[in-house]
Amino acid sequence: MAATGVLSGMRVVEAAAFVAAPLGGMTLAQMGADVIRIDTLGGGLDYRRWPVTDDDTSLFWTGLNKSKRSVALDLSSQEGRELAMALICAPGPDAGLFVTNFPPRGWLDYDRLRAGRSDLIQLTLQGDRHGGSAVDYTVNPRLGVPAMTGPASSGEPVNHVLPAWDLITGQMVAVGLLAAERHRGRTGQGQHIKLSLQDVGLAVMAHLGFIEEARRGQPRARHGNELFGAFGRDFRCADGERVMVVGLTGKQWRAIADATGLGAEFDALGRQLGLDLAQEGNRFRARREIGERVGAWIAARPLAAVAQAFDAQGVCWTRYQGIEQLVNSDPECSPANPMFSTLHQPGVGEVLAPGIPLDFQGSGRLPAQPAPVLGQHTEEVLAQLLGLDTAQFGRLAERGVVARPPVG
Amino acid sequence: MAATGVLSGMRVVEAAAFVAAPLGGMTLAQMGADVIRIDTLGGGLDYRRWPVTDDDTSLFWTGLNKSKRSVALDLSSQEGRELAMALICAPGPDAGLFVTNFPPRGWLDYDRLRAGRSDLIQLTLQGDRHGGSAVDYTVNPRLGVPAMTGPASSGEPVNHVLPAWDLITGQMVAVGLLAAERHRGRTGQGQHIKLSLQDVGLAVMAHLGFIEEARRGQPRARHGNELFGAFGRDFRCADGERVMVVGLTGKQWRAIADATGLGAEFDALGRQLGLDLAQEGNRFRARREIGERVGAWIAARPLAAVAQAFDAQGVCWTRYQGIEQLVNSDPECSPANPMFSTLHQPGVGEVLAPGIPLDFQGSGRLPAQPAPVLGQHTEEVLAQLLGLDTAQFGRLAERGVVARPPVG
Repeated sequence: MAATGVLSGMRVVEAAAFVAAPLGGMTLAQMGADVIRIDTLGGGLDYRRWPVTDDDTSLFWTGLNKSKRSVALDLSSQEGRELAMALICAPGPDAGLFVTNFPPRGWLDYDRLRAGRSDLIQLTLQGDRHGGSAVDYTVNPRLGVPAMTGPASSGEPVNHVLPAWDLITGQMVAVGLLAAERHRGRTGQGQHIKLSLQDVGLAVMAHLGFIEEARRGQPRARHGNELFGAFGRDFRCADGERVMVVGLTGKQWRAIADATGLGAEFDALGRQLGLDLAQEGNRFRARREIGERVGAWIAARPLAAVAQAFDAQGVCWTRYQGIEQLVNSDPECSPANPMFSTLHQPGVGEVLAPGIPLDFQGSGRLPAQPAPVLGQHTEEVLAQLLGLDTAQFGRLAERGVVARPPVG
Repeated sequence: MAATGVLSGMRVVEAAAFVAAPLGGMTLAQMGADVIRIDTLGGGLDYRRWPVTDDDTSLFWTGLNKSKRSVALDLSSQEGRELAMALICAPGPDAGLFVTNFPPRGWLDYDRLRAGRSDLIQLTLQGDRHGGSAVDYTVNPRLGVPAMTGPASSGEPVNHVLPAWDLITGQMVAVGLLAAERHRGRTGQGQHIKLSLQDVGLAVMAHLGFIEEARRGQPRARHGNELFGAFGRDFRCADGERVMVVGLTGKQWRAIADATGLGAEFDALGRQLGLDLAQEGNRFRARREIGERVGAWIAARPLAAVAQAFDAQGVCWTRYQGIEQLVNSDPECSPANPMFSTLHQPGVGEVLAPGIPLDFQGSGRLPAQPAPVLGQHTEEVLAQLLGLDTAQFGRLAERGVVARPPVG
C-alpha cells in the first residue's frame, strides 16, 4: 500500500524561524499535510543557522524544513506581505491554518488576517506570554534546570545542549493546530492560539513535581548522573567504557540483582540499613551503598562481559557512546531502521533523513522527503492557491517581489 | 464565557505509567477530553514515583494525571482485564482512542482489542522499536548527548535532569492520537500506531543536524555553556550572580553592543580577526574574544545594573536562578500567570497547578483540575460506559475486582 499520510489534504502556512514553530510545521508535513513555509527573499533569521556545510548551507534549516513547500516573497514590501496574507487566508475546507513565531502585529495581527478568512486558525508562538524576548537558552536558566545539572560537587550551572524546551514546544504547536482544527470542524469557529516557550517550561516543571517539592521547602538538589528517586547511574567498566544502569521498576531492579549475582548482598544491605530495597525510594536512599557494589562488579569486567550479563537478564542499561559512534556503528541510526531513508538534499548532498517517528500501521508512514530549496515552490503555490498565471508571476519577479529560485 | 475545552466530547482511555504516555493523555485532558486512566488496584508502576510528600503521595503521579478520571481494576484477573477491554472499546463516535506503554500483547494486543471495536485507535509507546527496554535515562547516553554536555575541559558524561525525550514523546503521543482520529473521521478507519522513545530521539538528533554533521566527520564538540553557532554563554556579575546572554539574531547582537557600549570594540575586533561579526557563525568563531569583552563589562557591575542596561536595550538574557527562587519570587511561577491556579490536590493539599500552555483565545483555556484519587471514578465510569448498576458494582467489589476508593 502506498502511504498517503494520515493528514493528507490538510494545508498549513508557516512563517517562522528556529526550532519550535518550524518543528511543529514539519511534524504535520511528515504526516502528509501540505505545509507551505513562507520566507522573505534571501531567507529568514534561521537560514544560516549552524551546523552548516563547508559552503554555508544550513544542516539545521534543511533538517527542520523537510517535506515542506517553500515560498519566498519580499516581506519588506507591501505587495509581498499582501501575497503572504492571501496565502494564509486562501480558501479550502482543510486549509486556513497558520503558524508563526513572529510578533502578531501589523500584517500578522489575527484580527486583520481574519478579515480575509473568518474561520482562520492562527497559532502564535512567543518567548514569554507578554511577547518578550526569550529563547530556549534563557528559559532554561530561569527555570533552575542548569543549577540542578552536573556533578554534585560542582556549583557551576550546566546548560543543556539539547534545546529541550523548543522541542517540547514544537510538538505542542502541532497539538494546538490539530486540536483547534478539530474544534473548528465541529463548530465552524477559528481562533487565535497563543503559546509561549516560557509557559511550556513552567508547566512541565510543575507536571514533574519540581515546583511543588520546592514550594514545600525541598528544592531538588544536584544529583550528578544519578536518577532521582530510585536507583540509576553511570559506571565505568574495566576497559574504560561507560554504562548507564537503571533500576527504576521492581523488574528492572531484580534484573540487576540477577545479572550481577548481588541479590544476597542487596538483601543483607537492606537489613543492615533497615530499608526494604524493593521500594524504589529506598533504593535512592541507599544509592551510595548500592552503587559501590554494582560499581565494583562492573569495574571488574570489560564492556562486552557486562553487556552479555545484562542482556541475558534484561537489565535496562546502555553504553555511553559519542555521536560519532552513533552514526558510524549503531544500526538504529541507519537505513536499517525503517524510520530513516537516505535521500538527496539540495545544497547538501546525500543525507540520512528520518520520517515521523509515529508509525501509523494502518494508513502507513510516509518516507522522509528533503527540505525545499528556498523559494522552490513560489510560482507553483501562487498559481495553485491564488490563480496567478505565468505573466503575472513574471511581473512580480520584475518588481523584485518574488525571485526565481536557483536550480537545486 | 465559560470554557468547555477545545476537545470537549472526545474520550480517551489510558493504561500507562511514568512520563510520556501519561503526559500525552493529560495534554488531551487539559484541553477538555474525557481521559479515563485505568490502573491496577493499588496503583501501577508509577504510583509512588518520586518526588513524594512526607506520607508518600507522589507529586509526580498527581502532576501527570491532572484532569483525568481514575478507574482501578484488578488487572491480574481475567474479569478485571475484560472490564478494561470493554472500556477501551466502549461505543461513542468520539471515543475508541486508547494509549498505552504496556506491551501490546495478551489483552492489549491490537487485533484482539479491535474485535471489540473495529475502528479502534491504539497508540502503543515502546522504549525502542523492537519492544525492548529503554527509558529516557538510557536513550540519552546512547544518542551521545551526555558526551557533549558540561564543561569543555571535562571528559565526564553529564546526564540531563529533565527527561527531555519523555517530554517530547509525550506531546507526540497527543499528536498521534489527534492525527489518527482526524483520519478516522474522514475514512472510518482506526489503526494501531507505534511510537518508540528511541526513534523520537534519533529523529530529533537528525532534525537538528547533529547526525549529519557527525556523518560528515565533524561531530559536535563539548562547548560547555556556550550556544553553538552564534554568540551566547553565561557570565558572572560583580555580586556573584550568573546571567545567560544570547546574541543569536542580528537584532540580539546589536542589543548587546548597545547595552554594553562595546559596539566600537566589536567593530575593531572584527577587523582585527578578519571576521564580519554581523554573521552569526563569525560570532561563534570569535566567541572567546567577544566573551572576554562582554565578561569584563558584566563582571564590573552587580546584577541590578546589568539587568537595567540589558532591559533598556531589549537584550535577550536571563538570570540563572535556583528552583527555590523560581517558586518564591518569580511572578510567572504564581497565580499571577493565568496558566496557573491554586487548587486542592487530594493527598497533597494546596498545590500550584498549571493548565495547558496553549491559550485558545477563541474557545477558552480550561483551568487546571486536580488529579483523581486512585479509583475515584471506577463506579461512575463502569455505570456510564458499560451500564453497570450499583448491585453489579457491589458484586465486583466483593470479588475484589474493583475497590471502593478511600475518601480523598
